[in-house]
Amino acid sequence: MNTITPTADPETGFTVEAVKFYRDLQERIIVAFEELDGGGKFERNDWTREPGHRLKGGGYMRVMRGKVFEKVGVNVSHVWGTASEQGIAQMPGAKESGGKFAACGISLVAHMANPFVPTVHMNIRSMATSKTWLGGGADLTPTFPFDEDTADFHASLKQACDGYRADAYKEYKEWCDKYFYLPHRKEPRGVGGIFFDDLDSGNQAADFVFQRSVGEAFLDIYPRIVRRRKDMPFTEADRDAQLVKRGRYVEFNLVYDRGTKFGFVTDANPEAYLMSMPPVAKWP
Amino acid sequence: MNTITPTADPETGFTVEAVKFYRDLQERIIVAFEELDGGGKFERNDWTREPGHRLKGGGYMRVMRGKVFEKVGVNVSHVWGTASEQGIAQMPGAKESGGKFAACGISLVAHMANPFVPTVHMNIRSMATSKTWLGGGADLTPTFPFDEDTADFHASLKQACDGYRADAYKEYKEWCDKYFYLPHRKEPRGVGGIFFDDLDSGNQAADFVFQRSVGEAFLDIYPRIVRRRKDMPFTEADRDAQLVKRGRYVEFNLVYDRGTKFGFVTDANPEAYLMSMPPVAKWP
Repeated sequence: MNTITPTADPETGFTVEAVKFYRDLQERIIVAFEELDGGGKFERNDWTREPGHRLKGGGYMRVMRGKVFEKVGVNVSHVWGTASEQGIAQMPGAKESGGKFAACGISLVAHMANPFVPTVHMNIRSMATSKTWLGGGADLTPTFPFDEDTADFHASLKQACDGYRADAYKEYKEWCDKYFYLPHRKEPRGVGGIFFDDLDSGNQAADFVFQRSVGEAFLDIYPRIVRRRKDMPFTEADRDAQLVKRGRYVEFNLVYDRGTKFGFVTDANPEAYLMSMPPVAKWP
Repeated sequence: MNTITPTADPETGFTVEAVKFYRDLQERIIVAFEELDGGGKFERNDWTREPGHRLKGGGYMRVMRGKVFEKVGVNVSHVWGTASEQGIAQMPGAKESGGKFAACGISLVAHMANPFVPTVHMNIRSMATSKTWLGGGADLTPTFPFDEDTADFHASLKQACDGYRADAYKEYKEWCDKYFYLPHRKEPRGVGGIFFDDLDSGNQAADFVFQRSVGEAFLDIYPRIVRRRKDMPFTEADRDAQLVKRGRYVEFNLVYDRGTKFGFVTDANPEAYLMSMPPVAKWP
């Protein structure tokens, strides 16, 4: 197993602390999900870029193909170095840092065996150029939405937001609705959640506390929703509807998703940033 | 059924003639594929943009879900009007035409039931702004390549090219290899074919004859390959390999394909430009 050793660059110093939390959260999610699955085990694969590559770093990939979790990826990634021209154009403050940047995050997508269990996505990340900022969010994509699940998911994220700033939930919920939208289909990806980016309030400690609370909120609420739905009986037609909904998920991730695009431009491991792809999907 | 009536604009005049050929070719492909399928029938759906839409036009969608052809789309589209800012930036000569453009084409993707029958794509198109040009190509994507199929497919396209210009096949084959490549996977989409774009040699009649011969070459060779492979016995593992290969096809079309991107920026019918999506695909 390779170990990722960040350089002593000041901008990576910022992300080193963040990665510690992401890896701890990753482990706790793994424990919770394996217990919930009651059979599946996460595969553990660490990868690093080849020596001599323009960029340094790699990722800690964790994937489970279980009974309840048909396919779930919980990845921590950490990349630093000098960005490509395209990367510099896309990242705030990268021009001023001479292209130097560091980025890390934890990213999770769960595709569930039972069509009544919603697909879920959670991501929190830290970025550094000549600026530093945080981003993240979580959103729920049911094939068959249950009001109870939607309400509980949002309530949990709202609580995380309320501890940070009075208007945060309202703003980040709206941002999520706007971001997780498929313009070509004229339909939302799911029932929303929260989304935030470019977060740098001036109080980095408070921003980190908020970001962590989003991770904790996710870990609190999603297993409760899974438990509620995982044993509901379903028909072949229900399953088909789920696979079509997953096709939309593929469209969003490949056409619009920033994290996936970031994977493409940083020449990352496709098995890592495409872990969000569903195990099977349909376009009938 | 709606009928698409082009305006009398000189730039659409160019495409009106092209559409006649594309529709004729479409009908002949349909007859050949239905006969080959021995059971399936094409559904016929015509669509037009809403009155008052920035753009005019629409498409003639033809889809068959058969026994041999698991899902095949053969679409003719025709769009004209004033391009969006993004469209103007992307189309040669659009700045000079004040954004006015017309575009039409026939586009075909076949996903086959038997994993030993290669997936195929064929497209020919005509574009007009202040300039006019043709584009097109055909490429083969087998899950399990057979040298005989690859050789025959290329030989047929080479013959079409040789009738046009001595170096055409070599150039368009290389263009195809370069275009139908997944950089993030570091792998080609399939075994290639030909690809050409921005074709305006100064002899429009000769360019059209060449383009037509590409369509005819496709109609000659692909049914022969299908006939050769469609009844070969296969295992569940073969089928799984096919579904994974189709996942790569999805990645190419959503991330790189110009035709799909053109559909996105012209606010076309997603059911038409996403007809290329496979009926089912896997990312295990």
